[in-house]
Amino acid sequence: MAKLFNHIAIVGVGLIGGSLARVIKREKLADTITGYGRDPERLEKARSSGLIDNYCIGFGQGLEDVDLVVIGTPVGTIVKQAVEIAPHLKPGSIITDVGSVKGKIISEIEEHISRDICFIGGHPIAGTENSGFESSCAELFENRICVLTPTESSHQAALDTVRKLWIAAGSRVILMDVETHDTICAAISHLPHMVAFSLVNAVVDMQNTEQNIMEYSAGGFKDFTRIAASDPVMWRDIALMNRDKILTTLDFFMRSLDELKDALYAGDGRTMEALFKRSRDARRGI
Amino acid sequence: MAKLFNHIAIVGVGLIGGSLARVIKREKLADTITGYGRDPERLEKARSSGLIDNYCIGFGQGLEDVDLVVIGTPVGTIVKQAVEIAPHLKPGSIITDVGSVKGKIISEIEEHISRDICFIGGHPIAGTENSGFESSCAELFENRICVLTPTESSHQAALDTVRKLWIAAGSRVILMDVETHDTICAAISHLPHMVAFSLVNAVVDMQNTEQNIMEYSAGGFKDFTRIAASDPVMWRDIALMNRDKILTTLDFFMRSLDELKDALYAGDGRTMEALFKRSRDARRGI
Repeated sequence: MAKLFNHIAIVGVGLIGGSLARVIKREKLADTITGYGRDPERLEKARSSGLIDNYCIGFGQGLEDVDLVVIGTPVGTIVKQAVEIAPHLKPGSIITDVGSVKGKIISEIEEHISRDICFIGGHPIAGTENSGFESSCAELFENRICVLTPTESSHQAALDTVRKLWIAAGSRVILMDVETHDTICAAISHLPHMVAFSLVNAVVDMQNTEQNIMEYSAGGFKDFTRIAASDPVMWRDIALMNRDKILTTLDFFMRSLDELKDALYAGDGRTMEALFKRSRDARRGI
Repeated sequence: MAKLFNHIAIVGVGLIGGSLARVIKREKLADTITGYGRDPERLEKARSSGLIDNYCIGFGQGLEDVDLVVIGTPVGTIVKQAVEIAPHLKPGSIITDVGSVKGKIISEIEEHISRDICFIGGHPIAGTENSGFESSCAELFENRICVLTPTESSHQAALDTVRKLWIAAGSRVILMDVETHDTICAAISHLPHMVAFSLVNAVVDMQNTEQNIMEYSAGGFKDFTRIAASDPVMWRDIALMNRDKILTTLDFFMRSLDELKDALYAGDGRTMEALFKRSRDARRGI
């Protein structure tokens, strides 16, 4: 693919930022990538690994000729970063992010940054429970969905540019309004995390009354609760930022669980079988 | 390993029964394996695949010289099979099963079969969401736990023999009382299945109000809900047979979920982070 940018800044060179840096290098999408972060040792490692060309600590320097800023930090910090970065950019520059919550982030950023900087919300639906650029790879986004959530304020040219970036990464780019994105992510990602965290905690609670339960959990339970090993601070922030929609999905889930519990309590095998079948068929349809 | 049996009967030549047949053949643990089932076509396929030497439909014939019967059928049918088989066996024969619920099964079987037939409850903690002997392999049980649940009525010699069978399969054999087994399985297997079924159904419910949610569920949701594709009839029977203990684990889970929901509702990031961290640490400890 042809060059899209002269100078890209990646804020937070972790799993996502690092993988995107690899894509940019592989596809020669920019002349220069500057990494921004807090830890010079980590950034030096990323530089010597060839992910970035140079790096800065803090936003005081090097941003004046940047075309595109990719914020790859956790959702709890994206607004702050964007607001701090924007005044250093030249007019027409683009900021995009990779956060899994969009509503609060975009409304706050659009309120606080200058109109001549364009923010395009992005969310590559990729990643593992690993983190850090050491786990990064250029193939992370291949055949995955990347959602972009332009608003009425978004410039079409900026949207097209960000879209090309993700297409170069091998993603299927889908445009979605902010509300729909946050509702879908609450259902298929945030709710399962809340459930997995709660499930592990419930077993820990039982552990206190019955010995050694966890010892037998090597098989299915371990697979099922893999996502419960995710970063607590990141998930605290996601939960806070998509609170209302997660609460709505929790209501749906609790109703569904109550229905099953009632059937179980009543020994109603017919209803249980129907509930399990409904779920099995839906799951097989994915 | 030396020969343990002259003649083994496997009732239900599916994933577990078929895999155990492969172990018995590989380790030359018996001269003859007879498969019992309902479908002559399937049994003929298992025979021509070399899993069993011959087969019978119904229990009227061929059981008189059998040393060991392995019941590999779903939990809902184990009691019925054992009670039908027992009168055809010679004194001293052993019956064992592979069901994931033990309490109800063992108490009903011990009540109904002759004292000179020994029933040893077994539960290899292995298996996938696949079923059928086509998915079977001799390595299925390797390095997995196999729980045996002898009771006061169990003969020590019979227990030792069944234990040798599972050791030959590469399993770590653990003896456990029936109550403990059913409590642990409720927590680490039955509860997660109830939760996964309910989670998928909740998303189906949301689907009716918000379009296309499932379409975006290719990643984490798909992995997380893999077990929701399990067989509805099998899980209806497990739920019915371990009802009380599953209801207890559901209470623990619902309390845990309520705690998180309250924190979310209150926007209490500190409590959420603590809950997520507790879960993360416990999960990492597995």
